[in-house]
Amino acid sequence: MKQSMCSISLQELAKLLGAKLVGDPRCIISGVATLEKAERGQLSFLTNRSYRKYLAGTKASAVILSQVDVENCDVPVLISENPRLSLAKAAAFFAKTVYKAPPKGIHPSAVLGAHCTIAASATVSAHCVIGDNVSIGENVVLGAGCVVGNDCSINAGTVIQARVTMYDRIRIGQNCLIHSGAVIGADGFGFAHHEGGWVKLPHIGGVSIGNEVEIGANTTIDRGFLEDTQIGNGVIIDNLVLIGHNVVIGDRCAIAGCTAIAGSTTLGAGCMIGGGASIAGHIELADNVHITATTGVNHSLNTAGVYSSGLSAKPNHIWRRNTARFHYLDDMAKRLRALEHKVQVIARTTEEE
Amino acid sequence: MKQSMCSISLQELAKLLGAKLVGDPRCIISGVATLEKAERGQLSFLTNRSYRKYLAGTKASAVILSQVDVENCDVPVLISENPRLSLAKAAAFFAKTVYKAPPKGIHPSAVLGAHCTIAASATVSAHCVIGDNVSIGENVVLGAGCVVGNDCSINAGTVIQARVTMYDRIRIGQNCLIHSGAVIGADGFGFAHHEGGWVKLPHIGGVSIGNEVEIGANTTIDRGFLEDTQIGNGVIIDNLVLIGHNVVIGDRCAIAGCTAIAGSTTLGAGCMIGGGASIAGHIELADNVHITATTGVNHSLNTAGVYSSGLSAKPNHIWRRNTARFHYLDDMAKRLRALEHKVQVIARTTEEE
Amino acid sequence: MKQSMCSISLQELAKLLGAKLVGDPRCIISGVATLEKAERGQLSFLTNRSYRKYLAGTKASAVILSQVDVENCDVPVLISENPRLSLAKAAAFFAKTVYKAPPKGIHPSAVLGAHCTIAASATVSAHCVIGDNVSIGENVVLGAGCVVGNDCSINAGTVIQARVTMYDRIRIGQNCLIHSGAVIGADGFGFAHHEGGWVKLPHIGGVSIGNEVEIGANTTIDRGFLEDTQIGNGVIIDNLVLIGHNVVIGDRCAIAGCTAIAGSTTLGAGCMIGGGASIAGHIELADNVHITATTGVNHSLNTAGVYSSGLSAKPNHIWRRNTARFHYLDDMAKRLRALEHKVQVIARTTEEE
Repeated sequence: MKQSMCSISLQELAKLLGAKLVGDPRCIISGVATLEKAERGQLSFLTNRSYRKYLAGTKASAVILSQVDVENCDVPVLISENPRLSLAKAAAFFAKTVYKAPPKGIHPSAVLGAHCTIAASATVSAHCVIGDNVSIGENVVLGAGCVVGNDCSINAGTVIQARVTMYDRIRIGQNCLIHSGAVIGADGFGFAHHEGGWVKLPHIGGVSIGNEVEIGANTTIDRGFLEDTQIGNGVIIDNLVLIGHNVVIGDRCAIAGCTAIAGSTTLGAGCMIGGGASIAGHIELADNVHITATTGVNHSLNTAGVYSSGLSAKPNHIWRRNTARFHYLDDMAKRLRALEHKVQVIARTTEEE
Repeated sequence: MKQSMCSISLQELAKLLGAKLVGDPRCIISGVATLEKAERGQLSFLTNRSYRKYLAGTKASAVILSQVDVENCDVPVLISENPRLSLAKAAAFFAKTVYKAPPKGIHPSAVLGAHCTIAASATVSAHCVIGDNVSIGENVVLGAGCVVGNDCSINAGTVIQARVTMYDRIRIGQNCLIHSGAVIGADGFGFAHHEGGWVKLPHIGGVSIGNEVEIGANTTIDRGFLEDTQIGNGVIIDNLVLIGHNVVIGDRCAIAGCTAIAGSTTLGAGCMIGGGASIAGHIELADNVHITATTGVNHSLNTAGVYSSGLSAKPNHIWRRNTARFHYLDDMAKRLRALEHKVQVIARTTEEE
Repeated sequence: MKQSMCSISLQELAKLLGAKLVGDPRCIISGVATLEKAERGQLSFLTNRSYRKYLAGTKASAVILSQVDVENCDVPVLISENPRLSLAKAAAFFAKTVYKAPPKGIHPSAVLGAHCTIAASATVSAHCVIGDNVSIGENVVLGAGCVVGNDCSINAGTVIQARVTMYDRIRIGQNCLIHSGAVIGADGFGFAHHEGGWVKLPHIGGVSIGNEVEIGANTTIDRGFLEDTQIGNGVIIDNLVLIGHNVVIGDRCAIAGCTAIAGSTTLGAGCMIGGGASIAGHIELADNVHITATTGVNHSLNTAGVYSSGLSAKPNHIWRRNTARFHYLDDMAKRLRALEHKVQVIARTTEEE
């Protein structure tokens, strides 16, 4: 059994998670693990039904689950209306043992511009480079090697991991988390076609990011052309996502990895975009539109709901036959229509006879 | 009304933009904004017909537009044959107030290799690391934290934003703009399959980039295996694009974000590639091939024109029915053919009777 | 003819490559080039049949090829059972002239944490930032501007190019190569939905990477939620790939660029994933599953084989007709079934008559 510095009784844990305990309240829990890997003394969870098969054999000392799964569990249970939320809280409790707070203050190797306001409680790590007129709030953490342009503000409690770039005039709200390699505020992809070549539209706008936003590793959020690109409050964005210039993302949207959202598109609040999706420019998605993974969206979607266009993998020899036919689908449709007509004529003739 | 340090009369602006003025030539313009957001004293524009609905209500003091839209506009107009080009020029004029030129010279924290030639007018920002035998031309700007390998040359007027990596033996032309996080010259993805595993092909080639090229944030352009990967003049590449080893991109191509171009593929001049496209390796695209967003290209395209393969989003319940049928398309085609035959036989029989 | 510092006789080269020489063994070779570009004194190769057309006209002094192509070649040949492997070995021989070994030791601008163990033969380049309790093995190279978190280990012979980020608790095996901009160990995209918003699941797990792994530029590999994300031995991963939290990649898998593998998915050994593929979370791929480029995989694949779902580009006007029909495919299928029934009834009737 792994012993951790963080231990807690099931009774206290139930209170912390807002869960109903069935089992010994004095049992001590010192970590969290999957059903398959959990050892005695650890808490586990059932938050995805595809793992139900591991419930019977788990060695965990307690399991977070829904009421519906209680009868299948032989160990103490923490019954939750939202097991995933309870799990998040439990993990946060045990995570305290592994996170090291970075040292406060400005590392001597950091390079600062003029007229910056940096809270005493903030961390500016080694080899950061910060422009002029930058404001950094209380408890902000800038990881190693970050580059922050002129006239930026980063508000209280925001953590920016190593090697993030912010261009000039970027505003980031409170309690955000931005992962390594993200680039905030590069120029949008906007050009005028002229004599067969391209003339750049200079990008004067900035980027404005709300509170409690998480942005994934190597994601890029371009600055607006004239106005700001806007990310609402509570938005979560995965790795390698492209957010184009002048995009507006509503509050609490979730955008999975490798998705591209082209310029000037607006997402309503609470949209969920699956991985590898592509959303065209200059369109609008209503509140609570859900786009499944790998879907292409090329027109506005004015109604909440789930939308899809991705195809799923089949054995190559089957696929080849079907994809070959796809390119004659219009022809097939016309032949079907002609045949329907012909059969109707024949049917009428034979009936008449 | 926002007041900017850059102001210009409509008369002068018309001259600058090559546009025909209808309205008071003495009217002073001090900024540019969208039709919806423009205030009095600002210039606006109609370059995309989906914004025509905002023309009537705009508070702008003048609008750049095409001859065809003049009659729908109640405020002074700047009539242009290429409104987007006029807009680019106008934005460039007003952008002067927001861009700060970086200080010339080499920041003391930069680390330089041996035998480098760096123009006195160039900027090498904080925490840059530059290899041996590097040549940096007049007015080149290297942003903070850039890493440049050995034997590279960056020619006059090129701006490289923060945190760009150039490996060894990369040549970048004049007046290019490379955005943060781009990686130029990593090894191509080339391996020999051997005993179930992979043996690396060492990449001896480099990357050669022409003049007036723009490369987006976190885009990667791999070095060639033996020869250089080549990007032509006037090419524009968006964020998160993958250009494989030995790819050759013709002059003035435009490649939108999240596109992948696999190794040894050649694009002719003036190609336009939509976002999220995938182009296979070892193929050729003719001049002026246009690929729409999310299209997969797996064979050469020898003729200019527009090519597509992306599917568009539909409500999930409709999509599911159709995608399920897709996997029986070949079967449907055969049944259709059989039915046509059968009906023809019946038709002949009934006619004969 | 280009003269290189590395020269070798065909006889020695044949021995080095494990190839059978037909031609003058004393002929001196001083470089390698494509059939089209090779000059006298250079070695060339035929490893892809689409380049067979250049064989007749090559100026190369010798060509690596398969037995099957010997009769079409007029110059000396090196006959190999695996020409691509022989090419890899030849390129490695000539590459020695262009690779400069970086200087050993720790650059004075690097910032090191407490309790680090760094081999004397290792290179820690300029502006690296290394956390506490980091172990760096013999001959490891850390390029400029890398950031390594706490409690990481990087084992002997591994090369990490410039500007790579490793978060805390990452383990990298021996003889790996990680390209610039890669981010190893950012938090997975795991959240609980709560009151319309998102509560973060803290990620306590790490990342464990085997030996002889290559990871491409700007690729991201997220840390596990509770356990490690795992990359097996001999795996090769291209640029801009997303590997989600708790993914397990089997030994010797190859993953091409712009592919996304969502969280908790397991790939068996020897899988090959084409570029731009999307693999859903919580699924399993058997050993030796091959996924062609741009394919979406949304369920487990339990049998080795080739799987596909990508569509290929067609001229836009043809495509538009077919894609429009696609959205009525279910309707077509039903009409086809109805027609079959109707025709059967008619056929029976006419036969009876």
